[in-house]
Amino acid sequence: MKEKKIESLAKEKRREVLKNLRGLGARLYNQMDNGVFPWIKMPSRSIENIFYSPELRQYILGDKTVQRSARNIRHIRPFTQVVWAGYFASELARNRKTSTLRDVYYSAQAYEIPFKDQPESNSIITDLETVTGFSREDFNVFPEERSAIFGDLTIEYTVPGYEGKQLDLMSHPDGVMIGPALTSSEFVKTKADKVIAIEKGGLFTRFIEERVHKKFNALLILTAGQAPRATRHFIHRLNKELKLPVFIFTDGDPWGMHIAMVIISGSANAAHLRELTTPDAKWSGVWATDIVDYKLPSDALTEVDIKRLHELERDPRYKGELWQREIKKFLSIKKKAEQEAFSRYGLTYIVDEYLPAKLKETN
Amino acid sequence: MKEKKIESLAKEKRREVLKNLRGLGARLYNQMDNGVFPWIKMPSRSIENIFYSPELRQYILGDKTVQRSARNIRHIRPFTQVVWAGYFASELARNRKTSTLRDVYYSAQAYEIPFKDQPESNSIITDLETVTGFSREDFNVFPEERSAIFGDLTIEYTVPGYEGKQLDLMSHPDGVMIGPALTSSEFVKTKADKVIAIEKGGLFTRFIEERVHKKFNALLILTAGQAPRATRHFIHRLNKELKLPVFIFTDGDPWGMHIAMVIISGSANAAHLRELTTPDAKWSGVWATDIVDYKLPSDALTEVDIKRLHELERDPRYKGELWQREIKKFLSIKKKAEQEAFSRYGLTYIVDEYLPAKLKETN
Repeated sequence: MKEKKIESLAKEKRREVLKNLRGLGARLYNQMDNGVFPWIKMPSRSIENIFYSPELRQYILGDKTVQRSARNIRHIRPFTQVVWAGYFASELARNRKTSTLRDVYYSAQAYEIPFKDQPESNSIITDLETVTGFSREDFNVFPEERSAIFGDLTIEYTVPGYEGKQLDLMSHPDGVMIGPALTSSEFVKTKADKVIAIEKGGLFTRFIEERVHKKFNALLILTAGQAPRATRHFIHRLNKELKLPVFIFTDGDPWGMHIAMVIISGSANAAHLRELTTPDAKWSGVWATDIVDYKLPSDALTEVDIKRLHELERDPRYKGELWQREIKKFLSIKKKAEQEAFSRYGLTYIVDEYLPAKLKETN
Repeated sequence: MKEKKIESLAKEKRREVLKNLRGLGARLYNQMDNGVFPWIKMPSRSIENIFYSPELRQYILGDKTVQRSARNIRHIRPFTQVVWAGYFASELARNRKTSTLRDVYYSAQAYEIPFKDQPESNSIITDLETVTGFSREDFNVFPEERSAIFGDLTIEYTVPGYEGKQLDLMSHPDGVMIGPALTSSEFVKTKADKVIAIEKGGLFTRFIEERVHKKFNALLILTAGQAPRATRHFIHRLNKELKLPVFIFTDGDPWGMHIAMVIISGSANAAHLRELTTPDAKWSGVWATDIVDYKLPSDALTEVDIKRLHELERDPRYKGELWQREIKKFLSIKKKAEQEAFSRYGLTYIVDEYLPAKLKETN
């Protein structure tokens, strides 16, 4: 699958990250050598500079830039913080250690440039992403939350102590956790021809038990609610590197819809990144029309649900025909249904009847 | 480690569960054959029949019983529901399928004895636990949430398709998910001499990265917040079957304290079960006194935190000296700290300094 050796791929990525960070440092030194106060320029992430791109099918940043200069007294604090974040990121990459956003917040205190709170610290990491074009996972800053994968895919680790070791992702039938080691692994081989992402843990287990991975030749991914960024990136890679189409199954309500949408088109917060979206992924259900067609047990929409649907209706990511139709249907039937509602027809109905019908319909 | 073959152990458990359920059914048939309305008797789970047992160091049910009889018109509904739940559980065991509490709720609709809501359905499953003495996991009703384990332990699966297969729990450095397959596996071999349970995912990853499993010869468990029931049962098994002492590390606040306590002494809701507690497990930190001793970055306690501490102060599970001392300390310093706060001293301080000190202190 890969022509290059996997170990050298991982090394190359690390080298690129470090080169980029060293470049940032070198520019600052150069500026000072030339007798100017050091400064950094980057695309603005303010709301008026975030646009939805119909071509890329995700949010992107516009042309506005911001400049932070050590000359401006109001800039000194965020300027210093970004420079420190770059230093911290290079230490992580060099020592091959991972951390979390929370660790970054506390670690800064050791350097006596404390952040006033977690949002300030998070925002500086996003600045560093914007300046460098790398995502924080490339800097070894990983999310706390974990999701899982199961199916016919063999990966090779690149983390210290596991270099060269391979894992068959069918080796543990509860699913294999998507953490820093899996995220940074390389794909070795697969026979699967699609990816099925599932919101709920109970259903993920049901799919494994009913051998959906075999019957439908699929890699199964548990998003466990809103998919963590590392998982969205992993789905992106499965789609790009292995050319696997992606089908997403969520609860039939505005929140489930949005779990699918964030995998597909991402969020405004990540408008400066490109590798967290999978624009060709399909939301395969549970649709509002499924609630009607399959006569599913359902609950009434709450006021919060309805308000959310009206928000989604105006959201540029939801412009497509399917989305608009389903939003309208939810609003007209005023009902929602969970994935488990199919158990009403027996535990395996969802696998035997619903899944094949929907894979066909959304293919 | 086991003298019996693992496959036969799992079969035996399944046979016991089915035998118990058939016994329940047979009693009902007998009653009817003898011309009486069928009835079920079980310990009462009402609040006045739940006591804390200082010997068992967990909540237990007292002597009061309740009887549900098909003769009493108000009993017919819950009586029928428990009988159905018993039937459903026996189907799961016989077909070796797993499900969730949510599946149980929806599945009942197929039999036209719908539950009015999820709490009613959950309560009937708890009734079935109380009647039979088995836990719902024994009936293959598993929680949605997952936690993880990592370390030198080889298990053998008993789930269909994986019988006889073994997994080394060091094979995936992000941690191995504790789902139905792992929960129902048997222990084959280990060299570890302790279990370290950790609340937060970031720290779990740090511990693996810093090779805590090697340096401290430990199995590492991620509870991911409040430990799911299946994970509490798994910790109980590691302690009972492998005689491994258990050390629990949480955030330094009343909620972290309680995560440790529920692993140690369980909850009032599970007063009818014995295999969800590990009374000899130790809460090793982050203590209130650690916040002071290690000069940790901290946040002020909120009013909700303070209210919760006063509740815990009166809770019979918190009678021990350590707990009372730490509750008082939290209330006097009016501060709390997260596990990640140690990053203030560098990312590996928690492993190099804090962990060995606390393992020694709480051994």
